[in-house]
Amino acid sequence: MDDLGYKTMLYDFYGNMMTKRQKEVYEEYYLNDLSLGEIAQKLNISRAAVHDNIKRSEKALENYEQSLGLIHQFQENQVLLEKILRLTEEADAPLALQSIRGLVSEVLKNL
Amino acid sequence: MDDLGYKTMLYDFYGNMMTKRQKEVYEEYYLNDLSLGEIAQKLNISRAAVHDNIKRSEKALENYEQSLGLIHQFQENQVLLEKILRLTEEADAPLALQSIRGLVSEVLKNL
Repeated sequence: MDDLGYKTMLYDFYGNMMTKRQKEVYEEYYLNDLSLGEIAQKLNISRAAVHDNIKRSEKALENYEQSLGLIHQFQENQVLLEKILRLTEEADAPLALQSIRGLVSEVLKNL
Repeated sequence: MDDLGYKTMLYDFYGNMMTKRQKEVYEEYYLNDLSLGEIAQKLNISRAAVHDNIKRSEKALENYEQSLGLIHQFQENQVLLEKILRLTEEADAPLALQSIRGLVSEVLKNL
């Protein structure tokens, strides 16, 4: 995943842990692609304050992922569930069910 | 779920967000069933300090659940995945696969 994709994912998973202001700045920068200067002007704060705000948010979001690992877990479960989805299209239905059983148990353990 | 079960679950899901000291006190109280006085003696702090520490941890853990809803999501997905697990035992395998397809899509959306 590229850095922007990861930054967006951090926001998707942990955005609710941010303050309203942090969310506002982070969204303008990473989701709406505004420059630091544009955000500074829009919010009537200094460019340095915008930069600091973003850096602090990044650090906090990364710490959440370090502690909770939701993105990591999501990616693992997504792979397993998509495997199951493909298995539901298998011609040999009884065999498919057997494989699904093992994969579902794995997802359950991950939860 | 009873209150103790819920407090334990909060710890399971969000314990990594706590400080070492918070974890220590919370574990002694909720997991090891020590009294406030026993914990106070063990850690050489006042009974009131132990009480405050636990109350602050509870509040923090509940705020995490409010923001991230991991327990709520876990419970939803657990129900769906256990349904899938039961379906893998169905006699009519092609029909079971069809039902599984729908349930897996639901879990994927929840992630």
